[in-house]
Amino acid sequence: MEVLFTIKLKPYQEERLVTKFPDVTFHFDKSADDKEIETAAAIVSYGSNINVALLEKAKSLKWLMVASAGIDKMPLAEIADKNIMVTNVRGIHKTPMAESVLAHILALKRSLPFMYKNQEAKEWNRRVRSSELKGSKALILGPGAIGSEIGRLLQAFGVRTIGCNRSGNANPSMDEMIRFDGLLDRLPEVDYVISVLPSTQETRGLLTEEHFQAMKETSVFMNFGRGDLVAESVLIEALKNEMIGHAVLDVFENEPLPVENELWALPNCTVSPHVSSLSGKYVERSLIIFEGNLEKWLKADHTLDNLVDVQKGY
Amino acid sequence: MEVLFTIKLKPYQEERLVTKFPDVTFHFDKSADDKEIETAAAIVSYGSNINVALLEKAKSLKWLMVASAGIDKMPLAEIADKNIMVTNVRGIHKTPMAESVLAHILALKRSLPFMYKNQEAKEWNRRVRSSELKGSKALILGPGAIGSEIGRLLQAFGVRTIGCNRSGNANPSMDEMIRFDGLLDRLPEVDYVISVLPSTQETRGLLTEEHFQAMKETSVFMNFGRGDLVAESVLIEALKNEMIGHAVLDVFENEPLPVENELWALPNCTVSPHVSSLSGKYVERSLIIFEGNLEKWLKADHTLDNLVDVQKGY
Repeated sequence: MEVLFTIKLKPYQEERLVTKFPDVTFHFDKSADDKEIETAAAIVSYGSNINVALLEKAKSLKWLMVASAGIDKMPLAEIADKNIMVTNVRGIHKTPMAESVLAHILALKRSLPFMYKNQEAKEWNRRVRSSELKGSKALILGPGAIGSEIGRLLQAFGVRTIGCNRSGNANPSMDEMIRFDGLLDRLPEVDYVISVLPSTQETRGLLTEEHFQAMKETSVFMNFGRGDLVAESVLIEALKNEMIGHAVLDVFENEPLPVENELWALPNCTVSPHVSSLSGKYVERSLIIFEGNLEKWLKADHTLDNLVDVQKGY
Repeated sequence: MEVLFTIKLKPYQEERLVTKFPDVTFHFDKSADDKEIETAAAIVSYGSNINVALLEKAKSLKWLMVASAGIDKMPLAEIADKNIMVTNVRGIHKTPMAESVLAHILALKRSLPFMYKNQEAKEWNRRVRSSELKGSKALILGPGAIGSEIGRLLQAFGVRTIGCNRSGNANPSMDEMIRFDGLLDRLPEVDYVISVLPSTQETRGLLTEEHFQAMKETSVFMNFGRGDLVAESVLIEALKNEMIGHAVLDVFENEPLPVENELWALPNCTVSPHVSSLSGKYVERSLIIFEGNLEKWLKADHTLDNLVDVQKGY
């Protein structure tokens, strides 16, 4: 069996794989243009280089391991057509992403941006408008692995958590669960609206102007899922008209966010360049999932971990 | 009984006190120069205006309520001499302070200062060096009400907590407790050294160059207690020589921190202008403690809450 990596590994990681799987031929450090694509049964990539042209060339491909959570940019119809199995690394993002969300929430609550600015000017300015996170209320759109970890941490800070998804099924990290159709009614009472939703037919454009009008004027909207949850024009208007207090955005309609985009300069918007899931431990964690799945694959056990439902898109 | 406030209250708070305690004469909005000082049995202040001159004038003073945690700047010997009871508001700081400490830790871990700077330049820069808080180790100097709350939150993030004080007695928010005499031995293994110690004979100058040399080069030192825990010259050398990775300081030898102080401009130092305990809920919470104590006082019950041991200084 041949496995091709377009993800760059450290030498010790390559050695470990070669030693651990003597019957597998590994092609490390390859790109989509390399001819080994044709004979690889498995490809390990970040997903962004998987397109129709590559699928045409990859005649032996049976398993695509994507070291990312979202697969919305990939040609899913063609992948389904060719019966290629797809696994991702969902779950490994939950720690860095939840820590990022809490970092932004606490930084705003405890006046860190104000403090950093004053330090640059060497100005001892105690006129912070700090408040406390404790006792506030958060609505989490998409209480899966990541959303639940965010909810668990918020609960530790004494925040009441409301989870929102399609099913509304109970979740231990959410004090309450609601369904998408109940979302609008609950927005007026929450202090944080945090989305970690994937991009699917159901979530694209889920939030509209009506939703931002329903939110508290002091509320913080955080999008750490996908940029197509809400039209950027709607979001910009909501921020300019102070319908909400602040937005923290890790995802955008177009990435990189073009320099002329108004979001960069809005005083009540934090632009995070899609980095909330990054962590020094990322590749190693992805490899551990891959190695477990490769062991199964070699035993013809196709009940892989983190299998993606290509039809549903997550 | 006469009670004098040098703390400014909101009209509704004054009205509540007058209604709730009809037998008490309240003097609101007073300063140390007002003649009502002479007849007041209780004074409610932030503590900074309590000096020997005031104590001379306050001939009827029996109870001093200080809406602050530290009383180290007050003339303690004279207060003890005159048998004046002192209560403070320890405990009400724990939420805002713990949230501030976590805000700074997470902001550094998840690259928020880097992100804010890039946003000002409208630069989409994903070369963050973000890592995860989970799995790290923190040493908390002074695991009282505030330190324990910091420990509890760190534990929720998967951080191992080591508490350090005089007794070394067990504490549920600390995975381990050590005594001051064991501090130096444990510094080489921890990622965060967080002090919330008050200023006492025992804590002044507790940390020396030897301690900073023992810390990890990547470690973060946070002083949220009192500025005299370590000589500022020692701290500045430690930061300049990169003995540690970063310092976050909420307290200083001299406050406000003079503009010529080197700490302002060190790239691995965050200057927080003694604001970590501030919160919009501060005065109201202080009043609630005061009201409970006033009820006791009027019943000649002198087992007041938050009584300060004037001899020990905390």
